[in-house]
Amino acid sequence: MTTADSAVPDLKNLTISVLGGTGPQGRGLARRFAQAGLTVVIGSRTQEKGAATGAELAAATGGAITGTDNLSAAEAGDLVLVVVPWEGHDQLLESLKQALAGKVVVDCVNPLGFDKQGAYALKVEEGSATEQAAAILTESTVVGAFHNVSATLLEDPEVTSVETDVLVLGDEREATDLVQALADTVPGMRGVYAGRRRNAHQVEALTANLISVNRRYKAHAGVRVTDI
Amino acid sequence: MTTADSAVPDLKNLTISVLGGTGPQGRGLARRFAQAGLTVVIGSRTQEKGAATGAELAAATGGAITGTDNLSAAEAGDLVLVVVPWEGHDQLLESLKQALAGKVVVDCVNPLGFDKQGAYALKVEEGSATEQAAAILTESTVVGAFHNVSATLLEDPEVTSVETDVLVLGDEREATDLVQALADTVPGMRGVYAGRRRNAHQVEALTANLISVNRRYKAHAGVRVTDI
Repeated sequence: MTTADSAVPDLKNLTISVLGGTGPQGRGLARRFAQAGLTVVIGSRTQEKGAATGAELAAATGGAITGTDNLSAAEAGDLVLVVVPWEGHDQLLESLKQALAGKVVVDCVNPLGFDKQGAYALKVEEGSATEQAAAILTESTVVGAFHNVSATLLEDPEVTSVETDVLVLGDEREATDLVQALADTVPGMRGVYAGRRRNAHQVEALTANLISVNRRYKAHAGVRVTDI
Repeated sequence: MTTADSAVPDLKNLTISVLGGTGPQGRGLARRFAQAGLTVVIGSRTQEKGAATGAELAAATGGAITGTDNLSAAEAGDLVLVVVPWEGHDQLLESLKQALAGKVVVDCVNPLGFDKQGAYALKVEEGSATEQAAAILTESTVVGAFHNVSATLLEDPEVTSVETDVLVLGDEREATDLVQALADTVPGMRGVYAGRRRNAHQVEALTANLISVNRRYKAHAGVRVTDI
């Protein structure tokens, strides 16, 4: 590219890996990226589960998407999304530290608890899942994003446009630009820079509020930033 | 009212007090409520400052707005907004505990710190400013709201429609309904129920992200909730 945004590499030349890609959120994101024409590798706890979901999504989208285990997916990806449960987040990243070195890692994890009154934010020693990932993956560039996107909408083939902003948190401009560009590949979605990693906690925790909104309004809520 | 929402008292019969109403955010909210035809009393640290700002806004809006000290404003209000700096928030509320008993109190305070890298969320022992207010004002009904609304837009007389949602946090349905109705009186603004008080922290802290957005995009950012 010779344009002003030449710092953003062409996403079509990159492999996008989605760790935890067999859960609703990861599967939904992988589906949308494959539909957008990107090369996607799903990671799962087992090679078999990953491969099965990859094959399903390839059939559903006609896209370049395959699946395998999390380690192989981490190794295959140029840009690696982490969409795993909060429980075990740290151990998984410890185990993938070498495979993820030198890469942009996008943490999409919301540390939430649930009780009768609904969802609430869990305390995280490092401040947020994104900061925990950055603390573990010292040789990767960690960005936080895709926290507030409804899995239901992502997975619904009838939804042609996912009308929401993706708040992108990070300290390295090239990496946040890249992740914004990734969000922009999905129709209706817009990547918005929303601050440094130290301000990731509240974006992760805001998902608890959106769950309250969904319950009250029977919706699949997301957020848009106004005036930009 | 005989409609289904008869639980919401007619805001026109209530006095809306805005403590800290001489700062940009409080002044901006007071201006908009006065423009909407509501009766507004501004509170300030001194009676003189409050009265001066009240007179200015009465002249600017032609509305029913006056100003006085914070204690007199707290006593005068049926619905009382707290729009004071985080520093001193607890002492002020302690001093007004009796005056605010039996009332709906809307905490609008964002506990933020600032350094060279911008804004960040401060740790609050009670979890959030809203929860701190609830811990102190045990005889009031505390709601959190109006955290993410741009003071610049509120204060700009050229801005006829303030295009943003107001996330309303609280544990008592009648009170959150009332505060949503208050937000709805301002053209462009929409009150959205966004969860219980325990989920107020991230909404307060999200203001740090909006400050990052404003810096990056040269904007006066707010939030909209999608799909509702």
